Amino acid sequence: MSAGTLDKNTTIDLRKKHVGPSCKIFFSHDPIKIVRAKGQYMYDEKGQRYLDCINNVAHVGHCHPDVVKAGAQQMEQLNTNSRFLHDNLVLYAQKLQATLPSKLSVCYFVNSGSEANDLALRLAWQYTGHKDIITLENAYHGHVSSLIDISPYKFHQLSDAEHNPSVHVAPSPDVYRGKYRADHPDPATAYADEVKNIIEKVDKKGGKIAAFIAESLQSCGGQVIPPVGYFQQVAKHVREAGGVFIADEVQVGFGRVGSHFWAFQLQGDDFVPDIVTMGKPIGNGHPMSCVVTTTEVAEAFMSTGMEYFNTFGGNPVSCAIGLAVLDVIVKDDLQGNAVRVGRYLVSQLEKQKEKHSLIGDIRGCGLFVGVELVRDRVKLTPAAAEAQEVIYKLKEQHILLSADGPHRNVLKFKPPMCFSAEDVDEVVQKIDHILTEGRRLRPEQSTRSSTHQTRQTRQDMKPPVRKHI
Amino acid sequence: MSAGTLDKNTTIDLRKKHVGPSCKIFFSHDPIKIVRAKGQYMYDEKGQRYLDCINNVAHVGHCHPDVVKAGAQQMEQLNTNSRFLHDNLVLYAQKLQATLPSKLSVCYFVNSGSEANDLALRLAWQYTGHKDIITLENAYHGHVSSLIDISPYKFHQLSDAEHNPSVHVAPSPDVYRGKYRADHPDPATAYADEVKNIIEKVDKKGGKIAAFIAESLQSCGGQVIPPVGYFQQVAKHVREAGGVFIADEVQVGFGRVGSHFWAFQLQGDDFVPDIVTMGKPIGNGHPMSCVVTTTEVAEAFMSTGMEYFNTFGGNPVSCAIGLAVLDVIVKDDLQGNAVRVGRYLVSQLEKQKEKHSLIGDIRGCGLFVGVELVRDRVKLTPAAAEAQEVIYKLKEQHILLSADGPHRNVLKFKPPMCFSAEDVDEVVQKIDHILTEGRRLRPEQSTRSSTHQTRQTRQDMKPPVRKHI
Repeated sequence: MSAGTLDKNTTIDLRKKHVGPSCKIFFSHDPIKIVRAKGQYMYDEKGQRYLDCINNVAHVGHCHPDVVKAGAQQMEQLNTNSRFLHDNLVLYAQKLQATLPSKLSVCYFVNSGSEANDLALRLAWQYTGHKDIITLENAYHGHVSSLIDISPYKFHQLSDAEHNPSVHVAPSPDVYRGKYRADHPDPATAYADEVKNIIEKVDKKGGKIAAFIAESLQSCGGQVIPPVGYFQQVAKHVREAGGVFIADEVQVGFGRVGSHFWAFQLQGDDFVPDIVTMGKPIGNGHPMSCVVTTTEVAEAFMSTGMEYFNTFGGNPVSCAIGLAVLDVIVKDDLQGNAVRVGRYLVSQLEKQKEKHSLIGDIRGCGLFVGVELVRDRVKLTPAAAEAQEVIYKLKEQHILLSADGPHRNVLKFKPPMCFSAEDVDEVVQKIDHILTEGRRLRPEQSTRSSTHQTRQTRQDMKPPVRKHI
Repeated sequence: MSAGTLDKNTTIDLRKKHVGPSCKIFFSHDPIKIVRAKGQYMYDEKGQRYLDCINNVAHVGHCHPDVVKAGAQQMEQLNTNSRFLHDNLVLYAQKLQATLPSKLSVCYFVNSGSEANDLALRLAWQYTGHKDIITLENAYHGHVSSLIDISPYKFHQLSDAEHNPSVHVAPSPDVYRGKYRADHPDPATAYADEVKNIIEKVDKKGGKIAAFIAESLQSCGGQVIPPVGYFQQVAKHVREAGGVFIADEVQVGFGRVGSHFWAFQLQGDDFVPDIVTMGKPIGNGHPMSCVVTTTEVAEAFMSTGMEYFNTFGGNPVSCAIGLAVLDVIVKDDLQGNAVRVGRYLVSQLEKQKEKHSLIGDIRGCGLFVGVELVRDRVKLTPAAAEAQEVIYKLKEQHILLSADGPHRNVLKFKPPMCFSAEDVDEVVQKIDHILTEGRRLRPEQSTRSSTHQTRQTRQDMKPPVRKHI
C-alpha cells in the first residue's frame, strides 16, 4: 500500500475529486492531516502534536494498546456474522447489560448510532402500535432518513413541506437559554409539562405517541444538562399515552459523565428508559453500536415474525473490541479520571468566567463540558464569531476544540477519557490568552450590552465548524 | 478476556437471555459454534471443519492475512473520523472509482449496506425532488426503516396499512418462474415495460418517480439473473420520468460474477447506473460500505447546505482494509478463480440436473449460483421442504449452504472467492448423495406432477432458514 505518502495538496485534490462535497472537513481553508494518534494526542504529517479536546469516539484514548490487541487477535481468528454461536457476542451482551438497570436486558448489535436510533424507532413503533414521535428542539439523532425526520438540528434546513407530520418538537430543557431558566421554581416540571401538552394536542388530532426520544445530555444541541426529574416526569406522561422513552446515549454514555456509567442515571435511580441506544465510544473508533431494551419490547418486536439481521452487527471482532473497551474503562479508572479532571476543568473555566465576561455559562458532568459564549450576560446574545475565533486560534496553537449548539457559540469539551490536569492547564491558559487578546483588540465587546445580530464569522473562518462527532 | 471458553449450552443460554429474539441463528435446533476460520473453511469448538459455501462477506477468504495485517497496522497508528485529511480515504476512493465507469466518481463512505441504500434514497430524493420509488418483487435492500419500506422480501409480512404508498413493486425479471419466461421472445423489454406501466400509473395519480432500485442480481429474491438489456430499458423509462437508477451491489459486487467487477456490467457497457451501493464483501467482514454517484447527484445533495457526516465512515482503518481487499482480489486472481470455479460448479450441477428431476434450474455468474428445486419441471412446484432437507443434511456432513427465494427453494452458492474445484466436488457429490437417497425414500416424488401445496418443512427443520447474508 502506498498509504501515507501523498503530499497534503494531493490529498486535498483527491478528496475534492472523489469524496462527496457534503462531507465537510475541519478548518476547510487549512485542514489538518493527521497521520497518527496516541491517548489524547494526535500528530500531523510533520510530527506536530495536537491536544485533542473533542474526539469522544476515541473514548479510552486513541489507539489504546489493549483495544488494538483485542481487535487484531480476533481478526486473525474469526470474523463472521451472528447466525453462528460465538462467545464474544454473549459475553459482551452480558457485560454490557451489567452496566444497566436489570430491566434493560436485551441487546441488538448494529454498526452505528444511526442504525441504533433507527432500530429504536422500529422497536417503539412495533411495541406501541403508535406512530408519532416527540423529539427535542436542536436534537441530532443520526443521518439515515428516519432520523433526519426527528433531528431539528438537521431538518430546520429543510422546507416545511419536507417535515414529517408525525414528528413533534418539544422545547430543549435548557435552563440557561431555554424557555424556563435557572430562576424558574421548577424547570423540570415546566419542561415536562410542555411534552404533556404536545401529547394532548397530538391526541386531539387523532395521533398516538410511539416514543419520546432524547439524548440523555444534548450534545450538538449545545451541551444541555436537563434538570433532574425531567426525564421521570416525561416518561410518566409518555407511558400514560402508551409510548416509550428512548434514551440516546450515543455521544454521552460509557462513563463520560464520571459519576455514572450512563448519563440518564444522572436523573436518579428511579428513572429507567424503555430503550437505550449507544454508539460512538463503544468501540473506541471501531464501527459498532447497540440498542438495549426490555424483554417486553423485544418480544413485541419478534411477534411480527420478521427476522432482524444485521450483517456486521455483533461480529466476533466488534465484540472483542467492545469487551476490551469495557475492561479498559475499569482498569484505567477512566470514570474516576472523568470526575477528577472534569471537576478541575470546570473549576479552571470558572476562574476564566470571573475574568472574561464573554463566558456566559459553564455546564457539564465529568468530561462532557460546555462553555457558552455570550456578548451580554443578561440578554445572552450569542457570541458565535468569538467562539469561532477561539476555535481557530486554538487550532493555530495545536489544540482541537469545537463550537456547537443552535447558535454555534458553545465550546464543547468531550476529550478522550484519559485527558489530564496538565491538558486542562494547557487549553485553559490558551483560551485565557485568546480571550484577553480579543478584549484588547475589541475593547467595546467585553462591556457593551449588544442587541444587534450575531456578526458573521470572518470570511476565512467559513464555513463555521458544524459538527457532531 | 474470557472469550471462547464457555460450553456450548452456556453460550446458547446467554444468547437467549441477552440477544434480541428476532436475531435468528442458523439451524436453531442445533446451532453451530464457530471459533475460527481460514479461507473457505470454518471450524467449530471441537475442531470440526465446515466447508463454507455461503459467506459472501468473507469475500477474499476468512481471515486473509493481508487484510488482517492492514487492519491491525492501521489500528495501531490512527483511527479517527473523516473531518481530518487522511491518505487512506482518498487513495481508497480513487482505487474504488477506477473499477467503475468514469461518470461514477464521487464516494460516500458509510458503515453498512443499509446505511448505503438509505443514503442512495436520500441522494435520489434530493437530486430529483421526487418521492416515489420503484422496487422489485422479493427485493431486500436492508434493515433500516426506509429500506423495509422498499423490501417486499420483508414488508410482505406486514399489514397493508403499513405499506408506504410511495413505493411501487415491479415484477422480478425472473425468466425461470416469473411473468415472462425464457420462452418469451423478448423478456427484457416485457419486464422493462412493466416498469414503464408503473411510471405511467404513478404519474396519473400525481406521483413522481425519484428512483428505481434493484440488486444487479437478486440475491434473497432467489438468485435471479435479469435478462441483458433490461436495465438499459428500465433506466431509459425512469430517467425520462426524472428519476435515477440505483444499482444495489451490496451482495454481488467486487468481482463475484467473475467476468466483471460489478454485476451491473453484465448488462453491457452501454449501461451505467446513477448511483451504486456496495457493502458486505467490501471489507471482508469489517463493517464498512460505500455509495458512489455522479458529480451532478453529489452537487444536488450538497445544495441543501446540509452536511453529511458519518462518524465511522471512511476512517483510516476501514480504508486500509478496503484497500487490502482490492489488492487481494487482483493479487490472488479471484475474478479468474470465480470464472473458472464458477463454470466448473455449474457444469457439475448440470450433470446433477440430468440425474435428478428435482433440480429445475441452475443459474448464475461466477461464484454466485442458484439451484432451484421443483417437484415438477413443468408446473415448477417449489420443492421447499426438499431444499431444507438438502441444507440440513449437508450441515450434518459439515457443509454450509442455504436456501432462499420467495419459496425458499433455491439453493444459494456464494462462497468465499477462494473456493476451489475440490470444494465443488465435495459439495456436489454430497448433494448427489442426498438427492439420490431422498428419491429412494420418496420414489413417487421424482416423477409425479404435483399440484398440491408445498409440503410443510419437517418439524425438526423449523424455522426455515431465512437469510440474507
